[in-house]
Amino acid sequence: MAKKHRIKTGMAPGSVVYTGNKQVDDIIIHHLQFNADTIKDSTIHKDKFLKITLEPDYIDWIDIRGMQETDVISSIATHFKVHPLLQESIVDVHQRPNFEEHDNAIFVTFKALSFDKTTLSVHREHVAVIIRDHSLITFQETRSDLFEAVRKRTADSKSRVRKRGTDYLLFALLDSIVDNYYITLDQFEEVIEDIEDRISEDQSNVDKSKIHRLKKELLVLRKSIAPLREVISNFSRSDNTIIQENTHIFIRNLYENTIQIIDSVDSYRDMLNSLQDLFIAELSFKMNKVMQLLTLISVIFIPLTFLAGIYGMNFSYIPELQYKYGYFILLGVMFCLFVILLIFFKRKKWM
Amino acid sequence: MAKKHRIKTGMAPGSVVYTGNKQVDDIIIHHLQFNADTIKDSTIHKDKFLKITLEPDYIDWIDIRGMQETDVISSIATHFKVHPLLQESIVDVHQRPNFEEHDNAIFVTFKALSFDKTTLSVHREHVAVIIRDHSLITFQETRSDLFEAVRKRTADSKSRVRKRGTDYLLFALLDSIVDNYYITLDQFEEVIEDIEDRISEDQSNVDKSKIHRLKKELLVLRKSIAPLREVISNFSRSDNTIIQENTHIFIRNLYENTIQIIDSVDSYRDMLNSLQDLFIAELSFKMNKVMQLLTLISVIFIPLTFLAGIYGMNFSYIPELQYKYGYFILLGVMFCLFVILLIFFKRKKWM
Amino acid sequence: MAKKHRIKTGMAPGSVVYTGNKQVDDIIIHHLQFNADTIKDSTIHKDKFLKITLEPDYIDWIDIRGMQETDVISSIATHFKVHPLLQESIVDVHQRPNFEEHDNAIFVTFKALSFDKTTLSVHREHVAVIIRDHSLITFQETRSDLFEAVRKRTADSKSRVRKRGTDYLLFALLDSIVDNYYITLDQFEEVIEDIEDRISEDQSNVDKSKIHRLKKELLVLRKSIAPLREVISNFSRSDNTIIQENTHIFIRNLYENTIQIIDSVDSYRDMLNSLQDLFIAELSFKMNKVMQLLTLISVIFIPLTFLAGIYGMNFSYIPELQYKYGYFILLGVMFCLFVILLIFFKRKKWM
Amino acid sequence: MAKKHRIKTGMAPGSVVYTGNKQVDDIIIHHLQFNADTIKDSTIHKDKFLKITLEPDYIDWIDIRGMQETDVISSIATHFKVHPLLQESIVDVHQRPNFEEHDNAIFVTFKALSFDKTTLSVHREHVAVIIRDHSLITFQETRSDLFEAVRKRTADSKSRVRKRGTDYLLFALLDSIVDNYYITLDQFEEVIEDIEDRISEDQSNVDKSKIHRLKKELLVLRKSIAPLREVISNFSRSDNTIIQENTHIFIRNLYENTIQIIDSVDSYRDMLNSLQDLFIAELSFKMNKVMQLLTLISVIFIPLTFLAGIYGMNFSYIPELQYKYGYFILLGVMFCLFVILLIFFKRKKWM
Amino acid sequence: MAKKHRIKTGMAPGSVVYTGNKQVDDIIIHHLQFNADTIKDSTIHKDKFLKITLEPDYIDWIDIRGMQETDVISSIATHFKVHPLLQESIVDVHQRPNFEEHDNAIFVTFKALSFDKTTLSVHREHVAVIIRDHSLITFQETRSDLFEAVRKRTADSKSRVRKRGTDYLLFALLDSIVDNYYITLDQFEEVIEDIEDRISEDQSNVDKSKIHRLKKELLVLRKSIAPLREVISNFSRSDNTIIQENTHIFIRNLYENTIQIIDSVDSYRDMLNSLQDLFIAELSFKMNKVMQLLTLISVIFIPLTFLAGIYGMNFSYIPELQYKYGYFILLGVMFCLFVILLIFFKRKKWM
Repeated sequence: MAKKHRIKTGMAPGSVVYTGNKQVDDIIIHHLQFNADTIKDSTIHKDKFLKITLEPDYIDWIDIRGMQETDVISSIATHFKVHPLLQESIVDVHQRPNFEEHDNAIFVTFKALSFDKTTLSVHREHVAVIIRDHSLITFQETRSDLFEAVRKRTADSKSRVRKRGTDYLLFALLDSIVDNYYITLDQFEEVIEDIEDRISEDQSNVDKSKIHRLKKELLVLRKSIAPLREVISNFSRSDNTIIQENTHIFIRNLYENTIQIIDSVDSYRDMLNSLQDLFIAELSFKMNKVMQLLTLISVIFIPLTFLAGIYGMNFSYIPELQYKYGYFILLGVMFCLFVILLIFFKRKKWM
Repeated sequence: MAKKHRIKTGMAPGSVVYTGNKQVDDIIIHHLQFNADTIKDSTIHKDKFLKITLEPDYIDWIDIRGMQETDVISSIATHFKVHPLLQESIVDVHQRPNFEEHDNAIFVTFKALSFDKTTLSVHREHVAVIIRDHSLITFQETRSDLFEAVRKRTADSKSRVRKRGTDYLLFALLDSIVDNYYITLDQFEEVIEDIEDRISEDQSNVDKSKIHRLKKELLVLRKSIAPLREVISNFSRSDNTIIQENTHIFIRNLYENTIQIIDSVDSYRDMLNSLQDLFIAELSFKMNKVMQLLTLISVIFIPLTFLAGIYGMNFSYIPELQYKYGYFILLGVMFCLFVILLIFFKRKKWM
Repeated sequence: MAKKHRIKTGMAPGSVVYTGNKQVDDIIIHHLQFNADTIKDSTIHKDKFLKITLEPDYIDWIDIRGMQETDVISSIATHFKVHPLLQESIVDVHQRPNFEEHDNAIFVTFKALSFDKTTLSVHREHVAVIIRDHSLITFQETRSDLFEAVRKRTADSKSRVRKRGTDYLLFALLDSIVDNYYITLDQFEEVIEDIEDRISEDQSNVDKSKIHRLKKELLVLRKSIAPLREVISNFSRSDNTIIQENTHIFIRNLYENTIQIIDSVDSYRDMLNSLQDLFIAELSFKMNKVMQLLTLISVIFIPLTFLAGIYGMNFSYIPELQYKYGYFILLGVMFCLFVILLIFFKRKKWM
Repeated sequence: MAKKHRIKTGMAPGSVVYTGNKQVDDIIIHHLQFNADTIKDSTIHKDKFLKITLEPDYIDWIDIRGMQETDVISSIATHFKVHPLLQESIVDVHQRPNFEEHDNAIFVTFKALSFDKTTLSVHREHVAVIIRDHSLITFQETRSDLFEAVRKRTADSKSRVRKRGTDYLLFALLDSIVDNYYITLDQFEEVIEDIEDRISEDQSNVDKSKIHRLKKELLVLRKSIAPLREVISNFSRSDNTIIQENTHIFIRNLYENTIQIIDSVDSYRDMLNSLQDLFIAELSFKMNKVMQLLTLISVIFIPLTFLAGIYGMNFSYIPELQYKYGYFILLGVMFCLFVILLIFFKRKKWM
Repeated sequence: MAKKHRIKTGMAPGSVVYTGNKQVDDIIIHHLQFNADTIKDSTIHKDKFLKITLEPDYIDWIDIRGMQETDVISSIATHFKVHPLLQESIVDVHQRPNFEEHDNAIFVTFKALSFDKTTLSVHREHVAVIIRDHSLITFQETRSDLFEAVRKRTADSKSRVRKRGTDYLLFALLDSIVDNYYITLDQFEEVIEDIEDRISEDQSNVDKSKIHRLKKELLVLRKSIAPLREVISNFSRSDNTIIQENTHIFIRNLYENTIQIIDSVDSYRDMLNSLQDLFIAELSFKMNKVMQLLTLISVIFIPLTFLAGIYGMNFSYIPELQYKYGYFILLGVMFCLFVILLIFFKRKKWM
């Protein structure tokens, strides 16, 4: 997690350095300008961002995807009058989710999450959002659009997004991210349940490090999601004029969902611990079975083999060897011993 | 838990979507109208809800059972002037128990719980209640009536339910739910105690995953019950005019019961962990016994078999083989060895 | 714990129902009337309680023992003007310890505890106390008197109990209960230490479920004692006029004792967990010893037996068998092998 | 811990009863009277305490060592006007460390600790201190002087103790106690590290119960030290006129040290848990090694012995037995099998 | 950790004693004097510190490296008017990170950390900083310079460090320390991941005590880092006039980083616990495999050897021995038994 941070050691605070590891071909700038009546949608080349003009009668949503070219990010941010320290936060993908208010602007960072069920790894994408009275700027770490669902809704002139301000738009973005968390947790839970099923059936070599890996990824999940509680709590308690009164009920609803998600993450931890216990118990149980079989066979045949060994000795005078039915008597004795031991083990429920 | 939430991903906030998995044939609407003197009881078809009229001299309790037909729910809720966001909460069965105050109304959601001792699974039913000065609307997830006990009490004109307002009725509903929690926990506890008894007697294959499954279900129980503490705490601290002064003593009593229930749930967690430890200890103990038996038999017979092997060799000159009583002397030596080893094990308390 | 609560499900709140399981023959009413100068002591038949008159110049302590006849309890309570909801709390033995102030009265419930060292079970007795300016009513679950020590002290006209008000008397009752907790914890600790000693010596079959049972009983102890912290904290912070200024220093002292007791209960939990670990470690250690012995014997004799087997074969041409001293040479080789293996194990500290 | 408390059950609150178990021959009273210029040092017989006079121009430090003769303690305390309830606290050695303010006096109790590395037990000594404007009275449980270091410093007329008031003297006493805690913890840590070293080398019988015993003693340490945080916090926040402004910076420093000590105690707990895990892991690891050896020998020799057994049979017609080189061919086959199995185990890294 | 503290026991508070264990040849004094325009850099011999003059138009940064010669430290500190108690804190390397405000000065202590991946040990270096309006004094425990990166930045006249006051310089120092924490944690994490990889591959003897040692070192890390949260929180909330308004945004950023670091440290704890579980599971799993092999070989060959033993007996009349094909029939029977057992084990998935 901390790995890429090393890059920045020794630099002055406020240095705009991309700390992530995602490959990006080129920055995409997308500009959406709308009010209740009209909507304009355009994609701008990264060198032409100076042409973007914000109009007071519209809500302007400028969406920048890709963070590697920090000089471009920095120029765009400066163009839109973003404080230098915030510029650092925009591209520092290791920053915890955060909510800050500065100079008539609200600055929010959070993580989009996805879970890959085959590699059992959580992928995080850093997102930074700045809202002002009539404009909202989003920075996404990769070129794929996390906010497609919200963007689609803006197309509908009757939707709430079109009628409300930037505060509602910010809420809608956060809401769509939290909705995606549900999917991520779902997939996580499916993997847990899959392991559960496998443990009861058969213990393949794979399982035991799987639980460990899931525990590790859960720490990543928790680190990314837990601070959101404070972010949204600050959002809801903020008395910033950008946030309108009638948006608060929505934020509060979002807050409830966030707490529910954090609850789930916490319960996964308990689940994984319990799963680890189950795995160990299952191993012990299986070992017990193996040991019982070994003991069963040993306890039955070791004394019998000893008896056979006795009459295999070459002493010149062993009277039993001369008896005509000596062999058959011994076989009978051995059979009785065998049966007695079987009954003994039957009683001990080893068979 | 989070599974069905996926349905709503990408939708606008406030979408009224049923997120549960219960099959419902048809919505039932039940209308109870009473004051201290009179009581009227009627069942209304789902299409005729417009005919319901609330009268200021009466307490109106409208009970809607079944949540799948969200359009009907939405129409009814709109008819009774329920805020759209609350409509979403009514049918979102994954919402945590919650207490909200809006526009002269109090909105409460909670879960009814039952525990199936054979499948070891907790069943949850979502309930939403809206109270205003003279009316109370309840939404239950299934057609079976959770509030039968309370309804019966309304038949008695001397009962407190008849004389008090909607605040007391809400209290009575919550109280009956919490009473049911006691039964659920009872059944849960019985299963735990049953496992305890089984572990000390015999360890059948079933037990070990049972503890794990109980732990999982306990997480469900905890998630459903724990937020109730805050719900009832908010209820008791609310200064809403709907809540009358003399109801507070009842709510406080309810609050004490809720805390007691949460205490119990927490103690089950400790119990199950202790049970897991007991199970592992019991397994280790049993393995020890098995190993002791194996070692006992091996340590006694392996050296004896070796001795028999020695005199089974075909060397041309083995003087002992020629002694007349060689065989009997050897048998005597073997017997002594046998006795010495037995005493040794007796001292080690392996027998 | 929750078991008997089922009785009340479906009943209206405020129903006076005994939820315990103690057999009581008959309710005993005891009336103690005293001031600094005089003291009157009388036992009243349960039907004659109407004759009890409270006199303003005296402190009246009415002690009712036995709770099963709830109609009698209810009549007496009503006679002394106890609120109906409090009447429910008096006989609801599953209620958590509680402190409430109502109508110029203070209502306190708590548990008397005892620990049976042979059955390893904690016994709880429910106690409810109501104090007013000049009267104190106590309700005990069984006929045996928990407050004998306090009662004895009232006989001494120089004792503080005689000179102070009902607030001091309540403090004295709580103080005697807390004193008894020390004895209960003592006995609990003795059992823990007894198990400790046994584990290091020998692991009898009994121990492992004992630890589990103690953990369970500890949960009962904790549930009964932990809420007392809040009860006494509320008692000490109350600005009720019944509580005189000079009693506060005593309550504060009591509070310190209660915290000390809760600390002890918490430390027992750690002790039992550590004991469980010790038990498992001891089992593993013992298994190791057993395995070492088995391995020792097997590793020494299996190769030797193999050698004996070689020369027990019936091949027509085995040159060694013809050597005159073949047998003795082989015995020598076997002895060397034996000694070498012994040295090997000695070095590995298996012997 | 709670053991000796039983003594007091049933007694009236405020009874001055020694609850400890230390044997004391005789109470020693030591009187130190000093100001910046003069210092007087005298030891007074326990019957002559009435002769002690406090002079307003001096700081009087009266040090009483030994607590068993509670009547003497009580008389002395009464002579110096100590509240009866505080008298109880002075000799109740099971009291948690505490800070109280009464009647122009500050009353502090705490524990002096030492750790015996051979018996692995923590020894506690109870100390009570009362300070007023110009006098300080200390009560120590045994005759050995815990405050020698501070007393020595008073001999130096340039030392801060001589120039400041009783508040600074109290601070100096607490500071010397906390300094001693460092030594106690040091010894505790040395024992932990000693066990660590032993576990990696060899697992003697002693270790496993040692960890358990250390855990138990750590609970005693924690119980004695943890409340000191609150004591010193109260001391530093007190606005009592006895405490001078310029003493606060020293108390704050002491507070930092106390927190550091509590941190250490907490980390020992983690260390001991980790040590327990290490011990179990080491046991499992060793068992694994033992099992591997057993399996190695068994898997190699059991099949070989079987082969030898085959040709030891007495069938009248076994063709191989007649071959001239049959014996040598079999030896060759056995050797090949032996080598193959060795290679197999080498690959599995069992050798 | 507490080890060296013993040195100070019995000394008066405020004694300036070096409690660390670092060897230092000689104290180095470095003086940096700069404002936005000019910068002067000089190294002064430890005896000539009196020559250092602070000029009000400049920011003076006096950096003292090496702490063993406490008399020199004390003289320097006294020369710069540092309170005696703070002098004690400067050289007491066991002090927790701390933030104090005294006499127009801010006093901060913290730890520089590094992690040695070969010895698995965390090295701590104590640092103390005092800032006043125009001067900043740093005390480092060793001669190596921790603040090289910041010093380099002062060379650049356009850097923020040059333009701002001592508050920003203090921030820059803390920031560089926190940056270094990231590297330390990185190395720690690499070791954890290295162990993870090794466990899944092969369990060498080294690993198991490695996890324990990492847990111990993590406690050191935590103790050094955790208090920084409060230090920086106090720094950010301070209303001291030394701290300028525009520095707060930087401190807040630093605070976020600190919390992120503490989060990481906490997650390492979970990781190590999970790793311990994985290690134990892996051991059990491996033991299971070993036991399965042992059981496989034993269960197959013990009965066969018994059969061979039977026909190795020397009874005078064993009819089977006379059959011409008796030997081959027996071999056939043995082979069938062998195949049946193989199939049995194949089904049990032991092969």
